[in-house]
Amino acid sequence: MPVALDALNNLAPDAFAAALGDIFEHAPWVAGRAYAHRPFATVTALHAAMLAELGAAPPEAVTGFLNNHPDLAGPAARAPDLTAASRQEQATAGLDVLTPEEAERLARWNARYRERFGFPFIVCVRRHTHGSIFAEFARRLDADPDVERQAALAEIARITALRLVDRVDGPGKPEVHGVLSTHLLDTARGAPAAGVTVRLFVLAGDGAARLVAEAVTNADGRTPQPLIAARPIPIGSYELRFAIGDYLGQRGDGPRFLDIVPIRFGVAGPEAHYHIPLLFTPWSYSTYRGS
Amino acid sequence: MPVALDALNNLAPDAFAAALGDIFEHAPWVAGRAYAHRPFATVTALHAAMLAELGAAPPEAVTGFLNNHPDLAGPAARAPDLTAASRQEQATAGLDVLTPEEAERLARWNARYRERFGFPFIVCVRRHTHGSIFAEFARRLDADPDVERQAALAEIARITALRLVDRVDGPGKPEVHGVLSTHLLDTARGAPAAGVTVRLFVLAGDGAARLVAEAVTNADGRTPQPLIAARPIPIGSYELRFAIGDYLGQRGDGPRFLDIVPIRFGVAGPEAHYHIPLLFTPWSYSTYRGS
Amino acid sequence: MPVALDALNNLAPDAFAAALGDIFEHAPWVAGRAYAHRPFATVTALHAAMLAELGAAPPEAVTGFLNNHPDLAGPAARAPDLTAASRQEQATAGLDVLTPEEAERLARWNARYRERFGFPFIVCVRRHTHGSIFAEFARRLDADPDVERQAALAEIARITALRLVDRVDGPGKPEVHGVLSTHLLDTARGAPAAGVTVRLFVLAGDGAARLVAEAVTNADGRTPQPLIAARPIPIGSYELRFAIGDYLGQRGDGPRFLDIVPIRFGVAGPEAHYHIPLLFTPWSYSTYRGS
Amino acid sequence: MPVALDALNNLAPDAFAAALGDIFEHAPWVAGRAYAHRPFATVTALHAAMLAELGAAPPEAVTGFLNNHPDLAGPAARAPDLTAASRQEQATAGLDVLTPEEAERLARWNARYRERFGFPFIVCVRRHTHGSIFAEFARRLDADPDVERQAALAEIARITALRLVDRVDGPGKPEVHGVLSTHLLDTARGAPAAGVTVRLFVLAGDGAARLVAEAVTNADGRTPQPLIAARPIPIGSYELRFAIGDYLGQRGDGPRFLDIVPIRFGVAGPEAHYHIPLLFTPWSYSTYRGS
Repeated sequence: MPVALDALNNLAPDAFAAALGDIFEHAPWVAGRAYAHRPFATVTALHAAMLAELGAAPPEAVTGFLNNHPDLAGPAARAPDLTAASRQEQATAGLDVLTPEEAERLARWNARYRERFGFPFIVCVRRHTHGSIFAEFARRLDADPDVERQAALAEIARITALRLVDRVDGPGKPEVHGVLSTHLLDTARGAPAAGVTVRLFVLAGDGAARLVAEAVTNADGRTPQPLIAARPIPIGSYELRFAIGDYLGQRGDGPRFLDIVPIRFGVAGPEAHYHIPLLFTPWSYSTYRGS
Repeated sequence: MPVALDALNNLAPDAFAAALGDIFEHAPWVAGRAYAHRPFATVTALHAAMLAELGAAPPEAVTGFLNNHPDLAGPAARAPDLTAASRQEQATAGLDVLTPEEAERLARWNARYRERFGFPFIVCVRRHTHGSIFAEFARRLDADPDVERQAALAEIARITALRLVDRVDGPGKPEVHGVLSTHLLDTARGAPAAGVTVRLFVLAGDGAARLVAEAVTNADGRTPQPLIAARPIPIGSYELRFAIGDYLGQRGDGPRFLDIVPIRFGVAGPEAHYHIPLLFTPWSYSTYRGS
Repeated sequence: MPVALDALNNLAPDAFAAALGDIFEHAPWVAGRAYAHRPFATVTALHAAMLAELGAAPPEAVTGFLNNHPDLAGPAARAPDLTAASRQEQATAGLDVLTPEEAERLARWNARYRERFGFPFIVCVRRHTHGSIFAEFARRLDADPDVERQAALAEIARITALRLVDRVDGPGKPEVHGVLSTHLLDTARGAPAAGVTVRLFVLAGDGAARLVAEAVTNADGRTPQPLIAARPIPIGSYELRFAIGDYLGQRGDGPRFLDIVPIRFGVAGPEAHYHIPLLFTPWSYSTYRGS
Repeated sequence: MPVALDALNNLAPDAFAAALGDIFEHAPWVAGRAYAHRPFATVTALHAAMLAELGAAPPEAVTGFLNNHPDLAGPAARAPDLTAASRQEQATAGLDVLTPEEAERLARWNARYRERFGFPFIVCVRRHTHGSIFAEFARRLDADPDVERQAALAEIARITALRLVDRVDGPGKPEVHGVLSTHLLDTARGAPAAGVTVRLFVLAGDGAARLVAEAVTNADGRTPQPLIAARPIPIGSYELRFAIGDYLGQRGDGPRFLDIVPIRFGVAGPEAHYHIPLLFTPWSYSTYRGS
């Protein structure tokens, strides 16, 4: 149950801290100090005030805060005191299904990272897929320490913005969610294609496809809801599959020219709108990143 | 080594029969009787003469001829006296990789078919994939006996036309080969896309993809040779995969919007020309069955 | 100034008739009799009640009503007692610019039509262009009298629905307006094309093009308002011209490959939504009737 | 009647000069001196030898040669001693239809150009349209004299290459011709569109369209011959108009959505291949510069 920004603006200090104390991992003092800056006109202003308090803390306090974050790990290796928020976030990135080799690699990289930078590897996992987590980790492992400390704080900003948007209702929310939508047009008939099943898969590095969303187009050729909304679109590779063969119906013996149409695409911007229409006839199709 | 039609037209009866006696399975008499109709102006005329001799034979002789064909089978179950031509043809349709369940089903269907029609199931396997063989068998298993006998003879015509085209060089060959070609255009630059790797896969019913052909586009955006030519395109489902990400080159972090572009399509006409171009930009593409 | 449906529902008979008496040409009795059916939940219900009163009148009264409509004519030949509504409607269809030959043809057809059917040719001119008026007139001139009387009443329904929608504000308006919209996507950049000038022309039979609307695309690649909205799209031929050359900017000497892109299309359904996007690169484009 | 390169290589000096003496305007000495370099393996080698002899001449001789070229002019103002080749070339660029204002402008620019550079404005008119001639003239009128002398000699090379290609048959011709071709595909049917009338217009600056070529597509969706071939494609703006409405046939009342599809494009490279296909359905189309 989200709390209204208006209500937050009128809470006593204790209640305010109770409402927002866990937004920054194990650091209720961030919310406590932000209290002084009430009232907040927007959720973004509230978030900015919390980030400003973190930034104003002594460097050792910030390092301590960073060190309060859990290591990235598969379920077996997770710290028993992981916060509920962290536990849920790590699951979304598919870190619940690590191979032994991956678990071992993660443990090795975690150690090497801590040794080099003095705090654990922090990443906003809700913006990532299994594959992009590893790519990101590999990329940051050898960064310059000053650059990497900024990168860790930028990830903190992303993690806490997402938590805040889930927690607080009000105007001016930070733009932390993406949208993935589609639109089917039957250009042989000059009309939207209704009743077409659309499936969205995320593709793993080994080519395996995991179903993320499934929907059937309505009279306007759109899915009733976007295929992804109200959350970041995890960075990674995807495939949309449009079952236009069923829509087009049977004709003659043998396979149709077009049956399942796959559109494979990469997402690099989790907060962006990916609108990916399919314009088709029984013998042709086109797609594009639309708006 | 093909023999020239001109040369064939001038052979003595024995040499003629030696050259063409195995075109019709275990039936050198077909070539023997066609000898009288020399000279043949075209390979098609030669084939027609052979088919006419088969058609003029008494029904029991034709039934006997049909019965001289092998059962469709995986390698374990193949008759030891299978002709070389039949052995090679059965391998092309992927019948060398049957699951035990499929081998058992094939045996069961072979028995049921022989029982119903009095001769073995005959199909021009070079026109088929693993999957379409089973679909074709299932479809014909319950046919009307008169209709099915015609279907078997039509398959004989296809099998022998393909063998003849391989054996005899000359004008007027029967049209028994298909072509599968592609063309890549970079419409952001208004020019053909050179150096793009194109892979063609055949798709099994279980979604597994088997590589059939691979090529790199030349300066005109075409593969040096068609991806399939000089043979029928087996009926089935295919996927072309165009590695345009490598062509487009790196840009920024994270996955590209388009990297490997898959085009999935079905082939119902093994003797047709399937020209399947890809027009693309970094953010869009279209494809169609061209000519 | 439109009047609210709620207000109409509460008017005294005189005021009601004053508000709606001119919706049906020279026939205030139609509104007068519809008064009894108040209150109207929707504008469509009000219109239906008026049409029902017209339909319930004796045939001679209906004929009289039809005869109260003006002849279609150029300005020189218009009756001095033309109602303001009719005068304005006739101008929209470009009947103010008739050639002498056309004026003469119209006079001849008006006489022939009256002679055959006993009332003047009635058409909802706001749904037509200059060219389609003549095509419609020619088509109906030789119709069966019973069919044509129904056609005339169907046009009355269209004319009065449009007048009512202009006059009355309220829920459930009859769908008498069309929409013509566009969308520009630069598929080489994968983004909307902003700042592109779009011009809409109506094409006359002789190929002359008359500017109907002009707009510049915004950051989303759309015009701030649809090119046509809040009125029927007159039946006819149109050309959209997109000045993408200015957007793409200069490159080298000589003409660009694409500069002004014309899209020529016909409108047959004045009440429909014609969404006509342009997806383009410097070297390619595509368009379609979208939704 | 072209002469064979082989034959030329074996002519006596007089006959050689007679055959090629008029390739360079009023300068038979160019051919005469090139004679010494026989035999020529290719037409390009012959042309290169002639250009080399021109380049080896003393500057005053070259200036004299340039001065032997006629002014660009409308028919009224043309010098009576204009060579037949020049007369024909000037007509192709539409200089036969100058407005009085244009004729006056040309006269003024001719005088100014001669005054500045000491020789007349020379341009390979077969590579130009009416409009591009004026644009080219305006661009070169204020050039640096050294640069402009090179530009004039480059135009001489183009003019003489075209004349030589018309005169001499043989291997290795200079690439002085362009090709403009099209291809129609009905993507709703997945087949070429046969029987469609295609018209090519050149567009004047005032929007007037002059028919250049007209053809009907064959069974492969192509015109029997390219719309332009065996000559340069004059620099300018063009419009292809595809009469797909007639091909699609009648449906219902009112205008079709697509009837005449215009594709407007510019040509900047007269020697290039412009392949401009149209892929269409009744409700959509796309086009691109192909190869």
